[in-house]
Amino acid sequence: MGNKKARTAISPTREEDYSGWYQSVVREADMAEMSHVRGCMVIKPWGYGIWENMQRELDRRIKATGHENAYFPLFIPLSYIEKEAAHVEGFAKEMAVVTHHRLVSKDGELKPAGELESPLVVRPTSETIIGASFANWIQSYKDLPVLINQWANVVRWEMRPRVFLRTTEFLWQEGHTVHATHEEAVEETEKMFKVYQDFVEEFLAIPVIPGEKSESERFPGAIQTFTIEAMMQDGKALQSGTSHYLGQNFAKASKIQFAAESGELEYAYTTSWGVSTRLIGALIMSHSDDDGLRVPPRIAPWHIAIVPILRNDEEVNAKIEAYCKEITAELNKSYFAGNQPIMAKYDDRQYKPVNKKWGWIKKGIPIVLEIGPRDVENGSVSVLARDKNAREYENMPRDEFVTGASAILERIQKSYYDAAVARLNEHTHTDIHDYKSLLKLFSKKGMTGFVNAKWCESIECEDKVTSKKLTIRCLPIEQSGTEGHCVVCGAEAKMDAIFAMAY
Amino acid sequence: MGNKKARTAISPTREEDYSGWYQSVVREADMAEMSHVRGCMVIKPWGYGIWENMQRELDRRIKATGHENAYFPLFIPLSYIEKEAAHVEGFAKEMAVVTHHRLVSKDGELKPAGELESPLVVRPTSETIIGASFANWIQSYKDLPVLINQWANVVRWEMRPRVFLRTTEFLWQEGHTVHATHEEAVEETEKMFKVYQDFVEEFLAIPVIPGEKSESERFPGAIQTFTIEAMMQDGKALQSGTSHYLGQNFAKASKIQFAAESGELEYAYTTSWGVSTRLIGALIMSHSDDDGLRVPPRIAPWHIAIVPILRNDEEVNAKIEAYCKEITAELNKSYFAGNQPIMAKYDDRQYKPVNKKWGWIKKGIPIVLEIGPRDVENGSVSVLARDKNAREYENMPRDEFVTGASAILERIQKSYYDAAVARLNEHTHTDIHDYKSLLKLFSKKGMTGFVNAKWCESIECEDKVTSKKLTIRCLPIEQSGTEGHCVVCGAEAKMDAIFAMAY
Repeated sequence: MGNKKARTAISPTREEDYSGWYQSVVREADMAEMSHVRGCMVIKPWGYGIWENMQRELDRRIKATGHENAYFPLFIPLSYIEKEAAHVEGFAKEMAVVTHHRLVSKDGELKPAGELESPLVVRPTSETIIGASFANWIQSYKDLPVLINQWANVVRWEMRPRVFLRTTEFLWQEGHTVHATHEEAVEETEKMFKVYQDFVEEFLAIPVIPGEKSESERFPGAIQTFTIEAMMQDGKALQSGTSHYLGQNFAKASKIQFAAESGELEYAYTTSWGVSTRLIGALIMSHSDDDGLRVPPRIAPWHIAIVPILRNDEEVNAKIEAYCKEITAELNKSYFAGNQPIMAKYDDRQYKPVNKKWGWIKKGIPIVLEIGPRDVENGSVSVLARDKNAREYENMPRDEFVTGASAILERIQKSYYDAAVARLNEHTHTDIHDYKSLLKLFSKKGMTGFVNAKWCESIECEDKVTSKKLTIRCLPIEQSGTEGHCVVCGAEAKMDAIFAMAY
Repeated sequence: MGNKKARTAISPTREEDYSGWYQSVVREADMAEMSHVRGCMVIKPWGYGIWENMQRELDRRIKATGHENAYFPLFIPLSYIEKEAAHVEGFAKEMAVVTHHRLVSKDGELKPAGELESPLVVRPTSETIIGASFANWIQSYKDLPVLINQWANVVRWEMRPRVFLRTTEFLWQEGHTVHATHEEAVEETEKMFKVYQDFVEEFLAIPVIPGEKSESERFPGAIQTFTIEAMMQDGKALQSGTSHYLGQNFAKASKIQFAAESGELEYAYTTSWGVSTRLIGALIMSHSDDDGLRVPPRIAPWHIAIVPILRNDEEVNAKIEAYCKEITAELNKSYFAGNQPIMAKYDDRQYKPVNKKWGWIKKGIPIVLEIGPRDVENGSVSVLARDKNAREYENMPRDEFVTGASAILERIQKSYYDAAVARLNEHTHTDIHDYKSLLKLFSKKGMTGFVNAKWCESIECEDKVTSKKLTIRCLPIEQSGTEGHCVVCGAEAKMDAIFAMAY
């Protein structure tokens, strides 16, 4: 009996099969499903509600830093894509190509017809098509900087799709900016990268390691790529946002020129930066447990579900319903974290109460209230807070809960963040100094984590670890400044690098 | 001299060339441009800002009526599209088809490679792919209704593109709902159609005629299509939103079935409804004048632009700037129409003041303030309100303006709406009773307008007017109930119908 496995709402558990657990959390939380269109997902209301909240807050931060939204075509002519050599090489293998513009019925079957003179690519990213517009928009230094953001769907053909993490179509925002000087463009690249870090830490409750990508991991065509790397519960890294300094590469490809104050015609400096629905995958794998998803309150579509426990007695039920509706209305007038409205939902669907409760737990709603006849009599509520064990109730006087709900939500937000920080700290190894120890660490089963060690910056050493399914995630912005030896080849090295397995 | 043409910021004027005027308004307001990708537009920040405001308010109304947002794949398998016969026939001629999933370089040229086993269509609308999900989501009557909305881009290959009005790619929202009964689905169709009407009238300041489409104008596959029809300044109609009752047609095609309370398996009843970036075209052609765009305040990205008139005197300029910034900050703390924050922008770009002012006028911002040295001395502001002549200034004490700004914005909103209502009333003819008069009216140049006349409901009479480039826009919900004679064939007829030329 002592060995009896604890009941969990999700099967398999993380320990049993991490990858199966992930799929199961997504399914049981009713967040998304893979469609019959290869690699394309359907984002269901609970998943999309999380994405909408991410969009709202990130959009606010993007606008607060001076950017404006715009929208550019879904289709890109081949002639645009080929302009930047590294760029086309980076994306050629994964582009959906439109070749026809109508269908005809032929022998009872629909066939493509109206062949295009030149095929179009469905955008995998928009540097080239936006660059073509920028070239027309910009004449003089007075027109600079141009600070544009786009919310859009993009397509990168995916051979091994995985919901939210790797999908053929995904949703994202892509910032594209143009500057008169190298310095200004670098400053922009760094600023937006910081916006991402703050957003992910403050709203998604995910601590990240900010750093620069090594040359081989850069965005195709970029001079520098900055990244924020998060650690999932299995110790793998998930790249959660990137910001690219493109130098004059794309400006030259798209002929983005401006008349400087001197009157001379110069090529501009551009940047691009993006985060995608992949962040939802990061959210899931950062906070969820074996009872399902756990959503940080600041990003949750609903904060509190109120589930009535009805009886076979209409009079009692009417009282319960009235009581629930009063509490719901009171909560919906409240705020947490300063100015976020509390979203409370009275769940009067026709399903059984126990199924409703577990449905909400698996969706990771921060708080579930169950209200039965005794609660009405006592003026109390039964509270399930999702940061605690999903079976642990607390009975509270109704008024105490209503006035205290915002504090509970803030506690939950903080507890998810604190747990993620503790994990990142505990599993970032700084005591691995040679190749044998490095391989040994990553050959063990289960939690592996990050290694922060020296790298000589040679491509040979990077290729060597890559062949072992390890990657250099980033060169952290925060460098120790110490000298040491490359963890791969043993040569003298100054650069700190993060080694990890990755999604 | 009496014949001297008034100066206008837009050329050609509406009278000179209505279609040229429209293009020029879009260009001069910097709203959008056609890209080099055939039929696809670039929506620039001013145009996209208007769309974002439309989205925000409409999204609020869609959610307030119980719908949730979700997201479905961009690509649709041919096998889905084929399922509903009328549907595929309606869209086959205008669908972009993806046939390959990568590019290879061959003889120095990029060529499509990786041919798909079965081609994919870029969604022209999503009934079929959403229906495939609904069929999986729904088991029992307890799962109904399903009330889903999607914000997305769609593609319908366009041979004669026109910015905002007819573009190959456009942005829209598409609602898709599933119900247990015919009655509930019809109620939903009508409810959302009313949501559209209220939104377009209250926010876009465009009065519409709500009605039902004739059979030949229905959405391909629908049982009933409802529409709101607006009258543009040239008297042509613009269909501004549609709501479709699909009966069991799509439920049968996609096998959307549910176990009823009786236990029997039944086909569900579905609806769909949408509005698109076409509404921006309606907005432009409803309110703009020969000095450019005029945006109703409730939908404007910015409400007030503050343009400093600087001198060659740094001390004076510092005072002007401080004064402008104070006013901007005060305005940005204010609200209008109850709860809409006033968006005031201090325009410190390096261009000449007169160019900045006319830039804002052409963008249709509701109010421009010009602030020169004398205004600072007198504590006044020079006000240009866009509903009045663009050259008509009003001098006001600063405080009077700040406290009165919200009233001015509300006046502007109302004046645009009132003018549009007056136009709709004046140019809706109810005195045309025979075919000769009908053709005569629509053969004249310039403003034609709508004819509200009887129709015998025969397809022959509809085809006859269609051959004359006229269409039956809708059968208004508000029917007179009188009897009369079909304006085409003279037969006895009860049905009132709106005849008009249309975009």
